[in-house]
Amino acid sequence: MASEDATAASPATYSKYSNRVVLKTLLESSDGGLGLVGQRVVIGGWVRSSKEVMKEPVAPLPPIDNRMDEIKSKDVSCVEILQSRIPLFRSIIKVLGGSGYTIREKFETVAPKPSPPPPSTACLQVTDGSCVANLQVLVDSSIASPSQLLPTGTCILVEGVLRQAPGQGKHVIELKAEKVLHIGTVDHDKYPLSKKRLPLDMLRDYSQFRPRTTTVASVMRIRSALSFATHLFFRDHQFLHVQVPIITTTDCEGYSNMFKITSLVGKTDKKEEKSTIDTIEGVSLDVIKAALKEKSNLVENLKRSESNKEALAVALQDLRKTNELVSQLDAREKLKYGTSVKTDKVNISEEFFSCQTYLTVSGRLHLESYACALGNVYAFGPRFHADKTESSKHAAEMWMVEIEMAFSQLEDSVNCASDYFKHLCKWVLENCSEDMRFVAKRIDSNCIDRLQLMTSSSFEKISYTEALNVLKQIPEKKFETNLEWGVTLTVEHLSYLADDIYKKPVIIYNYPKEVKPFYVRLNDDGKTVAAFDMVVPKVGTLISGSQSEERLNMITARIKELHLPRDQYEWYLDLRRHGSVRHSGFTLRFDLMVLFITGLTNVRDAIPFPRSYGKAKN
Amino acid sequence: MASEDATAASPATYSKYSNRVVLKTLLESSDGGLGLVGQRVVIGGWVRSSKEVMKEPVAPLPPIDNRMDEIKSKDVSCVEILQSRIPLFRSIIKVLGGSGYTIREKFETVAPKPSPPPPSTACLQVTDGSCVANLQVLVDSSIASPSQLLPTGTCILVEGVLRQAPGQGKHVIELKAEKVLHIGTVDHDKYPLSKKRLPLDMLRDYSQFRPRTTTVASVMRIRSALSFATHLFFRDHQFLHVQVPIITTTDCEGYSNMFKITSLVGKTDKKEEKSTIDTIEGVSLDVIKAALKEKSNLVENLKRSESNKEALAVALQDLRKTNELVSQLDAREKLKYGTSVKTDKVNISEEFFSCQTYLTVSGRLHLESYACALGNVYAFGPRFHADKTESSKHAAEMWMVEIEMAFSQLEDSVNCASDYFKHLCKWVLENCSEDMRFVAKRIDSNCIDRLQLMTSSSFEKISYTEALNVLKQIPEKKFETNLEWGVTLTVEHLSYLADDIYKKPVIIYNYPKEVKPFYVRLNDDGKTVAAFDMVVPKVGTLISGSQSEERLNMITARIKELHLPRDQYEWYLDLRRHGSVRHSGFTLRFDLMVLFITGLTNVRDAIPFPRSYGKAKN
Repeated sequence: MASEDATAASPATYSKYSNRVVLKTLLESSDGGLGLVGQRVVIGGWVRSSKEVMKEPVAPLPPIDNRMDEIKSKDVSCVEILQSRIPLFRSIIKVLGGSGYTIREKFETVAPKPSPPPPSTACLQVTDGSCVANLQVLVDSSIASPSQLLPTGTCILVEGVLRQAPGQGKHVIELKAEKVLHIGTVDHDKYPLSKKRLPLDMLRDYSQFRPRTTTVASVMRIRSALSFATHLFFRDHQFLHVQVPIITTTDCEGYSNMFKITSLVGKTDKKEEKSTIDTIEGVSLDVIKAALKEKSNLVENLKRSESNKEALAVALQDLRKTNELVSQLDAREKLKYGTSVKTDKVNISEEFFSCQTYLTVSGRLHLESYACALGNVYAFGPRFHADKTESSKHAAEMWMVEIEMAFSQLEDSVNCASDYFKHLCKWVLENCSEDMRFVAKRIDSNCIDRLQLMTSSSFEKISYTEALNVLKQIPEKKFETNLEWGVTLTVEHLSYLADDIYKKPVIIYNYPKEVKPFYVRLNDDGKTVAAFDMVVPKVGTLISGSQSEERLNMITARIKELHLPRDQYEWYLDLRRHGSVRHSGFTLRFDLMVLFITGLTNVRDAIPFPRSYGKAKN
Repeated sequence: MASEDATAASPATYSKYSNRVVLKTLLESSDGGLGLVGQRVVIGGWVRSSKEVMKEPVAPLPPIDNRMDEIKSKDVSCVEILQSRIPLFRSIIKVLGGSGYTIREKFETVAPKPSPPPPSTACLQVTDGSCVANLQVLVDSSIASPSQLLPTGTCILVEGVLRQAPGQGKHVIELKAEKVLHIGTVDHDKYPLSKKRLPLDMLRDYSQFRPRTTTVASVMRIRSALSFATHLFFRDHQFLHVQVPIITTTDCEGYSNMFKITSLVGKTDKKEEKSTIDTIEGVSLDVIKAALKEKSNLVENLKRSESNKEALAVALQDLRKTNELVSQLDAREKLKYGTSVKTDKVNISEEFFSCQTYLTVSGRLHLESYACALGNVYAFGPRFHADKTESSKHAAEMWMVEIEMAFSQLEDSVNCASDYFKHLCKWVLENCSEDMRFVAKRIDSNCIDRLQLMTSSSFEKISYTEALNVLKQIPEKKFETNLEWGVTLTVEHLSYLADDIYKKPVIIYNYPKEVKPFYVRLNDDGKTVAAFDMVVPKVGTLISGSQSEERLNMITARIKELHLPRDQYEWYLDLRRHGSVRHSGFTLRFDLMVLFITGLTNVRDAIPFPRSYGKAKN
């Protein structure tokens, strides 16, 4: 079937809702698009890189007298001809001028300017974001001005004919443009991207443009594929999708760093609020000073490496801008008493919800309610932590996949988590091969091998106590934290287990009850609880799961022990009062899964618009 | 293929991650499960209704003397026999007592109590939430106490043998329990659900239990199917899924009722905060008083109808509880000065993000950034409006599907919206037939016909101006709002168009610029903008879309005209500065789609945990 499609001269497939052919359908067909040569298509996209190729010098012109008719009918091209024939200038003016023709004005307007650019062809590498590969688009200068087309980032919509690309280059086909339908120009001085690669950490300041880079586009396509694969996996295993709430009054996990929601704070008149924001430009001085340091380091590194001049230029410009901002803010800081928002006293009963509400940190408690009615359920949405510690693995807003299954125990969740994780790895290998090849080239050369290993190997399963013993037996390794039973395993411990000892995902289960949330089921030993973590190489804890405590007396005792506000949990306790059942589930940190797949090291590069301490712009 | 599966005696399919057979696989197979008769299976679920069937009276016992050995070996059953044979009492005591047997104590303990229940069978209608139908499970009283099993809401996990159900009832198969593996009992006095149906508005107070009702379970399964169908549609049309942020600094649409996010308000010590919440029970007096009125009305209605005694009992109990709460709160209200949270002055630079952040009202602006890089993109997530007006079509937190397409115009979005909408209708008809049949029976008898009509008919397309003219020509109808050109079409106008005039979805396009957000593209007439709404019968505006203004000068002029804070939009304007392109998109209000499909009238019944003014509990 597939090969038939490729060889048949079927017309190029137009995108159903925009009058253009999506480049992926051309460039990722099995023959690289050869079967479509000769077809007229419309394509749209952004220029990733470009060059201008000058045309062969034009053949000598025939004597001017033989071409008078032609000159009369084409007033524009005749100007070019005239310029090359200055000696004949006066006689022509005389002839044409006498016949009332307007060439005099045309010529006189053009004459004082420098000579027009010689004919050329703009060779544009165009992407429309649908695939890694670019389409080479050739636009003659007679159709559109090269100066408008050439800058990186320019948007074009062109009609042309597909033809076989010459030579043995990476392109199989190219497009010879015949009509330019749209040009979205770029203000070159202000556009932060260029055809040279910028470091990912610099790109973070330009969330609005990042997906135009090959790397971020690939990462986002992989992210999208992972999202679809998630829905597919759970549907195939008879899970129902439940949209749990973001706004909550329940402090899941007794976690204290929750964002609060208010309809009251800063309820000043619009003018006053605006001026406050202006004064501090929306960011604090500390945050900017930290950024300044970071940016200085970057510039130093770029200078040292000497590899990327354009990146250095951008970094320098950026550093200057930040420096200016700091001086402005320093000055304003001294007037700070003028910047506080008028709030006076907040009466909680005047709040929109008449009570204190938060952004949810986890949907699992709410999901339990649906599991205890519908069986197998999952949620997929953003979760929030107001955690100020800067970490490459955390952001304030992260997407989580949460599942909950009635009539299941810890082992069931471990198995489901493992299968789901393997499914994601397999899906990406099978459905994102071009993006993965690119990611292997650009970010992490091992990423494809790693995924293949994941789909074929079984994972290590050890209890918390065993993990501790394993770590204790490493004589050459001195950990910062003492390895007494009961301690929380740190990132250092976990990465040592997954990266150095087992070199594959490690599932650690049966944790001391003190290090896990109140709702995790107490084991018969009275000391440990039925929780697990799946720790994967390079990323750390990717999945956390548990069997929930279904016994009313046990869970109320835990709530009391931990001094949690019981009123918040009455609805949740109801699930144990009436028709309680064993159930278990887990959370997969979706953004970290993107890191694991791609080999990226900072979660901010895997999230479309990352939010973290001091950073919520765009 | 399907019929082969059904007739073959293949074993029942166990849920992969819980040791039970999901009821849907039994009850929705083409033969209703007949092919599985004789098989031993484990099933789990909750009792929806039940009855106790007494066993045939036992045959007369043989003379006691012949059964002495049996009596010796079975101390429990002999008590029953003894009770029926009181005259022989003393001689047996003598015999057994002399041999050191313990029957004396047993007998004496049991004797003062009323006679034990005669043998019976509990006939349980069990659901596990996977489908509409229940499985009838028969549990002999010898296996488990009927009093524990019979209450609605009881959870059971049982092993038994499937057998053909007797008679011509609605059940094809039933399960004869042989082992009860788990019982999750119900505290009958406190459990709000009963086998009689409660009105949906009463169920709203019990979000944690609602999905255990047949109606809400069906609605939630349909909702889940709609979610999957959404991802499938956009994937099949080469859209990428982009997770746009919830936390934003950008006031999309210049909408003023945004929730603010803070890490500062109420930053008092934990103890103080808790006592505040206790004092007002998390809800304001006004809200409870409104609820009280609502509940009184409900009780009156139920009394009048006399149709549902259990519902009335629950309603009365609920009313009493609310009454008590009001008196408590009234008393506490007088001490209100003690309840305000200590906040003093809030300095915005101390906020987590160092600036004022909001819960997003729409992801479309952020999505544009990805469309202008990756082509066709969509988002699917919760959006927020702090809108106090009570409406059956609005909640504070609602899920939206947003799409954005580069190189597209208004008409493309209209076509995409129509196709997507039809796809959803078709998907539900084909994949949720049992649930739709139930919904047709219980909620809206026309719902299936309506969906069939949607998939086959074309929609009405009229401009705003035409819509106004059509409405003006209705002499018998007097609208509350004047129909001058430029007015916002009200719910009243829109429902008249969709429900009364056209009786099908109506697409209204080219609105006056004043009634649409700043980012919508100005048409050449300078008066109207390229926006559209799809208004559907019964629900109203389901989809809103627009072509975005891609011209920098035009959009900055609109921002100025509307006095919007331009700093917020600089990143967004960047998309017009560099590589701008025509693009369009739309938003589908997902929760309203569930209403449209099911015929429900209040969006709170379609959302797992609805949030609205004064309501965020659970």
